[in-house]
Amino acid sequence: MRTTIKDIANYTGFSVTTISLVLNGKAPKIPDTTKAIILKAAKDLSYRPNQLAVGLVKRRTMTLGLIISDIRNVFFSHLAKGVEDECCRNGWNLILCNTNDLHTRELEYIDVLADKGVDGILYGMSLDSTPKMAGNSINHMTELKIPFVMVDRFIEAKDSSVVAVDHKMGGYLATKHLIDLGHKRIGCITGPKNLSDSQDRLLGYQKALAEDGIEFDTSIIYEGHYDKESGISGLDYLLDKEVTAIFAFNDMSAFGVYYQMKQHHLKMPSDISVVGYDDTFICEMLDVPLTTIRQPIYDMGVAAVTQLITQIEKKSSTQNHIILQPELIIRESSKSVFPTK
Amino acid sequence: MRTTIKDIANYTGFSVTTISLVLNGKAPKIPDTTKAIILKAAKDLSYRPNQLAVGLVKRRTMTLGLIISDIRNVFFSHLAKGVEDECCRNGWNLILCNTNDLHTRELEYIDVLADKGVDGILYGMSLDSTPKMAGNSINHMTELKIPFVMVDRFIEAKDSSVVAVDHKMGGYLATKHLIDLGHKRIGCITGPKNLSDSQDRLLGYQKALAEDGIEFDTSIIYEGHYDKESGISGLDYLLDKEVTAIFAFNDMSAFGVYYQMKQHHLKMPSDISVVGYDDTFICEMLDVPLTTIRQPIYDMGVAAVTQLITQIEKKSSTQNHIILQPELIIRESSKSVFPTK
Repeated sequence: MRTTIKDIANYTGFSVTTISLVLNGKAPKIPDTTKAIILKAAKDLSYRPNQLAVGLVKRRTMTLGLIISDIRNVFFSHLAKGVEDECCRNGWNLILCNTNDLHTRELEYIDVLADKGVDGILYGMSLDSTPKMAGNSINHMTELKIPFVMVDRFIEAKDSSVVAVDHKMGGYLATKHLIDLGHKRIGCITGPKNLSDSQDRLLGYQKALAEDGIEFDTSIIYEGHYDKESGISGLDYLLDKEVTAIFAFNDMSAFGVYYQMKQHHLKMPSDISVVGYDDTFICEMLDVPLTTIRQPIYDMGVAAVTQLITQIEKKSSTQNHIILQPELIIRESSKSVFPTK
Repeated sequence: MRTTIKDIANYTGFSVTTISLVLNGKAPKIPDTTKAIILKAAKDLSYRPNQLAVGLVKRRTMTLGLIISDIRNVFFSHLAKGVEDECCRNGWNLILCNTNDLHTRELEYIDVLADKGVDGILYGMSLDSTPKMAGNSINHMTELKIPFVMVDRFIEAKDSSVVAVDHKMGGYLATKHLIDLGHKRIGCITGPKNLSDSQDRLLGYQKALAEDGIEFDTSIIYEGHYDKESGISGLDYLLDKEVTAIFAFNDMSAFGVYYQMKQHHLKMPSDISVVGYDDTFICEMLDVPLTTIRQPIYDMGVAAVTQLITQIEKKSSTQNHIILQPELIIRESSKSVFPTK
């Protein structure tokens, strides 16, 4: 059991009240010799003030909750690092919650975090969330009066803050790059269609096609789930559709495309060019390093914490939409269809 | 601000005492109609009991702290997932602390976690820790009377629990596999030599060599830091040492070897066989899938939580050393030196 003020009282013989006054620096009338004995005892017994008590008085725990899908996913572990680093720099702590992409677990965690007295929640909605389900989570946090910031994935909701990446721009950059290389039949392996981040990438894709007068063909759009398996089944689906390039909506599904192209003895990029999305550290390590869209994942975590702390401390509606810009990283998996001179 | 008992008092007109009695189920003499009004008000106002207050009374917060190097490292994100899942199954919460492998930050975090009133700490020592530094951290947790379990890396310390992998066995399995394939000059790219997990892998390596009567040659042992850069510089160091195989003490440094072999136009496994350690999910995705030692990382996280909760709940010295077994996963990066028949 940790040392309490009572332990110091037993150890020194002074009353709990005297000790409490001395430790809180509110004892002008107590003799210095007594103070010295008490402070030495506190040190000897490794006493540290109980932050639970402090939290009860201040109604502030200096703790945030982070609700994400799965910390094993490279995207989320980078996000969590940005979040935790920024918490640490500001003297806050972070409770980690993995939902395994289940909306039901998300709701349970909101209750748990409320019971813990967290001052705010960084909310990354689960993959299976419909806008209605996400709305339920948001309403629940609002009812519990817990400030929150939606991170990465979001829905439009009144008085809500969002920190996200401009995925429409990301989708546009990826597609424009392939068009500039001469590709006209560009297959897509998307994320779940209920998610705004996947919808936006597709809008960016369509915008780039439209600019170049290329018709949008829904038959070469394959709906995936942001995993390796989606890349495998997506490639199989696109194989007889005469695509010369594939835009995978995240790196993980691009890795599935790599895997399956190898099974079919297809060469990348000469047979099919591939562009991913995320720029996880694995991209560089592949035999054909992956051209991809770099998301400022770590920065997003930092920005989300900054925004949330502002909301908590101002206790006012300083809701913001912070949209960070992605970047095209050209490597070796994308190639011009024009003959080299 | 969250709803308090005071808010319910203002809302219903009953006293704080009455409301507290009703909400805590200790109000046999209070009329059912009053109870009904109070319980409905609590529901309408989304009241949830303040766990800080509960924690102060019970001297239990149901919260554990996890101190690790860096959540972005695939090893630690898998460990954290096991830890958090097991916490969740048991109704506990997890505060995440990244030390960035700095011992000083480790000490700071122990204080922070103590101030938060965590009931226990899962302690993964930082990469720069000497046994003396790790001893300081352990002494500090002991002084603060916080139960802890050392995870993965550990030092021998009195009355301490450890959950780790049998790295001597891991080192032995990797080396034996290469010897069975006919390799006699097997270079090593180790981790920092102050860490027990690296020392143990080397002991396993030496044991396998000794069993086969192969002399231990320190000139082909390169000290790395468990990162990609170590694999790159390690390969360069070993290039003129006539090794036919390399045992990299973690996957990350094996990936550095891959990278650098490509720069030197060396073929894997025909020029040099490579065995890694960890079995991160990337191994399978490489152009030459990596033979490696699989660590039960997730299971280690689960076992550490189980052990720590037992210590906390029994409040007794039920210290244990739990050593999990690693497994050899043979893929395509290791090859026999004998001509195929």
